[in-house]
Amino acid sequence: MADLPGLVVTGASGRMGQMLIRTITSSDRARLVGCVERSGHDWVGRDVGECMGGPAMGVIVSDDAPTVFAKAQAVIDFTAPTATVEFAALAAQAGIVHVIGTTGMEGDHIAQLTPAATRAVIVRAGNMSLGVNLLTRLTQKVAAALDADWDIEVVEAHHRMKVDAPSGTALMLGEAAAQGRGVSLTDVRDSGRDGITGARKRGDIGFAAIRGGDVVGEHDVIFAADGERIVLRHLATDRAIFARGALRAALWGIGQKPGEYDMMDVLGL
Amino acid sequence: MADLPGLVVTGASGRMGQMLIRTITSSDRARLVGCVERSGHDWVGRDVGECMGGPAMGVIVSDDAPTVFAKAQAVIDFTAPTATVEFAALAAQAGIVHVIGTTGMEGDHIAQLTPAATRAVIVRAGNMSLGVNLLTRLTQKVAAALDADWDIEVVEAHHRMKVDAPSGTALMLGEAAAQGRGVSLTDVRDSGRDGITGARKRGDIGFAAIRGGDVVGEHDVIFAADGERIVLRHLATDRAIFARGALRAALWGIGQKPGEYDMMDVLGL
Amino acid sequence: MADLPGLVVTGASGRMGQMLIRTITSSDRARLVGCVERSGHDWVGRDVGECMGGPAMGVIVSDDAPTVFAKAQAVIDFTAPTATVEFAALAAQAGIVHVIGTTGMEGDHIAQLTPAATRAVIVRAGNMSLGVNLLTRLTQKVAAALDADWDIEVVEAHHRMKVDAPSGTALMLGEAAAQGRGVSLTDVRDSGRDGITGARKRGDIGFAAIRGGDVVGEHDVIFAADGERIVLRHLATDRAIFARGALRAALWGIGQKPGEYDMMDVLGL
Amino acid sequence: MADLPGLVVTGASGRMGQMLIRTITSSDRARLVGCVERSGHDWVGRDVGECMGGPAMGVIVSDDAPTVFAKAQAVIDFTAPTATVEFAALAAQAGIVHVIGTTGMEGDHIAQLTPAATRAVIVRAGNMSLGVNLLTRLTQKVAAALDADWDIEVVEAHHRMKVDAPSGTALMLGEAAAQGRGVSLTDVRDSGRDGITGARKRGDIGFAAIRGGDVVGEHDVIFAADGERIVLRHLATDRAIFARGALRAALWGIGQKPGEYDMMDVLGL
Repeated sequence: MADLPGLVVTGASGRMGQMLIRTITSSDRARLVGCVERSGHDWVGRDVGECMGGPAMGVIVSDDAPTVFAKAQAVIDFTAPTATVEFAALAAQAGIVHVIGTTGMEGDHIAQLTPAATRAVIVRAGNMSLGVNLLTRLTQKVAAALDADWDIEVVEAHHRMKVDAPSGTALMLGEAAAQGRGVSLTDVRDSGRDGITGARKRGDIGFAAIRGGDVVGEHDVIFAADGERIVLRHLATDRAIFARGALRAALWGIGQKPGEYDMMDVLGL
Repeated sequence: MADLPGLVVTGASGRMGQMLIRTITSSDRARLVGCVERSGHDWVGRDVGECMGGPAMGVIVSDDAPTVFAKAQAVIDFTAPTATVEFAALAAQAGIVHVIGTTGMEGDHIAQLTPAATRAVIVRAGNMSLGVNLLTRLTQKVAAALDADWDIEVVEAHHRMKVDAPSGTALMLGEAAAQGRGVSLTDVRDSGRDGITGARKRGDIGFAAIRGGDVVGEHDVIFAADGERIVLRHLATDRAIFARGALRAALWGIGQKPGEYDMMDVLGL
Repeated sequence: MADLPGLVVTGASGRMGQMLIRTITSSDRARLVGCVERSGHDWVGRDVGECMGGPAMGVIVSDDAPTVFAKAQAVIDFTAPTATVEFAALAAQAGIVHVIGTTGMEGDHIAQLTPAATRAVIVRAGNMSLGVNLLTRLTQKVAAALDADWDIEVVEAHHRMKVDAPSGTALMLGEAAAQGRGVSLTDVRDSGRDGITGARKRGDIGFAAIRGGDVVGEHDVIFAADGERIVLRHLATDRAIFARGALRAALWGIGQKPGEYDMMDVLGL
Repeated sequence: MADLPGLVVTGASGRMGQMLIRTITSSDRARLVGCVERSGHDWVGRDVGECMGGPAMGVIVSDDAPTVFAKAQAVIDFTAPTATVEFAALAAQAGIVHVIGTTGMEGDHIAQLTPAATRAVIVRAGNMSLGVNLLTRLTQKVAAALDADWDIEVVEAHHRMKVDAPSGTALMLGEAAAQGRGVSLTDVRDSGRDGITGARKRGDIGFAAIRGGDVVGEHDVIFAADGERIVLRHLATDRAIFARGALRAALWGIGQKPGEYDMMDVLGL
């Protein structure tokens, strides 16, 4: 057990944080060596297992990231952009892998990761599931194989609490389709159809968003021609897939050369 | 044969016009006794079968609607709102059934049908298929049975030439859902999601539009709660269903009292 | 709190047992007053919360059903047919509601419930979700509204561990369709198509089973005619819906006259 | 016009025959130079356009295949296995391309094509649509990328007249999945689930068949893991796609070296 790679989870009290903790502790390929929360959070100083309403795990939640990182091989981080930029610098100092699942990272935040990536391994992805990343690669290939007689539409469904549309994953799929066709998504994006839209413009990539219930995430990439359609679909029914993907990324990252990677690299797609 | 009800088709050269002609001539429950096109159209004066690229049918296309209507029991009309208003007056004069499948009719056009409906039977519907009308009735009932923990979304897909979104049928389904819930669609309609939308508002009815290929028409009404979903779906794969519905409406209308009817009346739903 | 109806869960250590315990303890409309396991099970004599890996709940697991039933208003039972028949007799003696979600009950087992139902309330259903029961009712109505030009197919998907096909719920939907048409399912059932089957027989009700992953349960009832289809679909994504349905059934049953009921009664469908 | 490649259609009076004739005559890349029917058929000796209920096309239906083949560059053949074997020999004698869309060819029939393929080009495919062939290639790649934690299921829907299950295309997709995994479909095929089946066997490839209405052809390849699914779907809504694929195959075949080819070769997949 002691020889298994030691992992840290940041944002331990969050929904994804707890999911990550459960995934790591039930895995036989890694062990949990630390949990981080922000100063002042009431989990700090307590056993994380008890905080989660179960038996003790022997890991005390800490607000001292550098000390915790020093005894680990990797940190998994689904927090917020500003916190993630700070964790990147600390992970680089400690020389450990930084797996980033944080959403809402803007160009500015991403640029700030560059110095860290010269000294340590960073794996960052908008969606950590094997299925979505495979779908993204397929989307690019199919878009490259078909001409513009095939209209491309990306349809996604998410739970009622989601605040943006289209989803980040839908846009990632749209980018892959645009890349396959050799065009820029900015030029062909058609989202939010409503009212008198006119006929569909040849070459456009359309987006539609469905919201309701507690849907984890569903994405369809539709290629529609006269008389036939191809649909590439991904259904996520359990958030654990994102945690499992992050764990896989952490284990993969240990031993790689410093640099920025994504799930395509991890999965060898 | 001579005893079968005699039907007239307006807009004979259009896509739906030709479909109606084929449907009537291949039916053993009605016969085609006239075809109408606007003055100056090059089909006028010619046999309609030959115009359609096949053998003669013994029916000459005419631009004289009153004369043609005089020898029929019903007229089926998928043309344009202004023409339809005129045909309604002529059909009332002739005392024949007027089946209206024309789309894009505004409140103003609809009001102009009222005088005709005091003297003759009018059957008007945005969608003449049995399936869609049944789905509309189901949507109302399910919306009435479920509370607002179930989020309602209407998703539709149509061919690339469609110029408006959501489709008229999607709005009809949304109206039925709103009616089932005892609310006004105007108050709860959420269409064209794009960008930072915020979380879904409880009680809203959402709409999403997919466009591509030659899709005839697909509609999903989704009821999404925590942990489960009900979906009511209609797929139209052949425009002939609209022509068959119109024929059924015409045959049903013969013998009814003057008035305005819809497909719910025809189908007894 | 003490005034809330007191509920017992049998088969406490099973997957559905634990789900029921969590659902009851997190509800503000009922309280957990007892848990039953078979003699010799290692949970007997221990606090059920601790058995489940969390904090104590103050309820000790017992193998003495009569004593536990005596202090409750209802028992929820997802165990096995033989055990359920015994629990029915004990619940009737105690005069409490017996909610039965046990699957695999044969005609023989069901007949043995009759004496108990003369003295107490029994609610029994193959599927306790609101959605599936609503879908069943819709299926019957649509089947009654459409003639045999509409071919009926029931398609279901379940996780890889499921040992039978079609699912009990699929057969319940097929029964509802047959009832709507006024035929017996035995006469028209067509399941397990493979090889040279010949053309589809008019009036048949077909079944297809998909197995894979951890799919909780998905059911489609397809009505397919020339040129159009209606699909009634239910997706279950969380087993908690079955526990919530069972809780609802228990609360509904308290105060009803003795007799056998199903979820249609509970839901007022 | 006279310089366009000249094509022959066998089985001219059949549903696919007529579809092929319409596709060729409306194309600006080929011309129809002959139509073949069996001796004694009442179309023989008449203009094919008039036989089809339209205007004359200037092509007389013949029962003398060698003479007709002699003036063509390619023949498209959707007939029956025995006829197809004979046409292959005649096409090889004439040195023209033979496009075979005939279904139900057994190993024995296929073996009989070999001598012809040494002298002329044969393109043979169970499904001539671009979409299905692309889907087949994707299926193989995805199956190769994913391990056996992902259960594979192939689901297909066809019209009520179809006499066999699973469809030839479903089996082709299953073969591609098996190939991707490096196993033999014979060893892992699981079709016709019905009754007590036991849990799904790891590594199996399952098949389910839906029959109803006039569905042209729909195929889903499902990869189902814990918490997520990938679905590769093809929908055919118009048989013209098969005729267009066959025309494309004929034009591609002219100028190739003698040999047996399939649609993958034609499409460059």
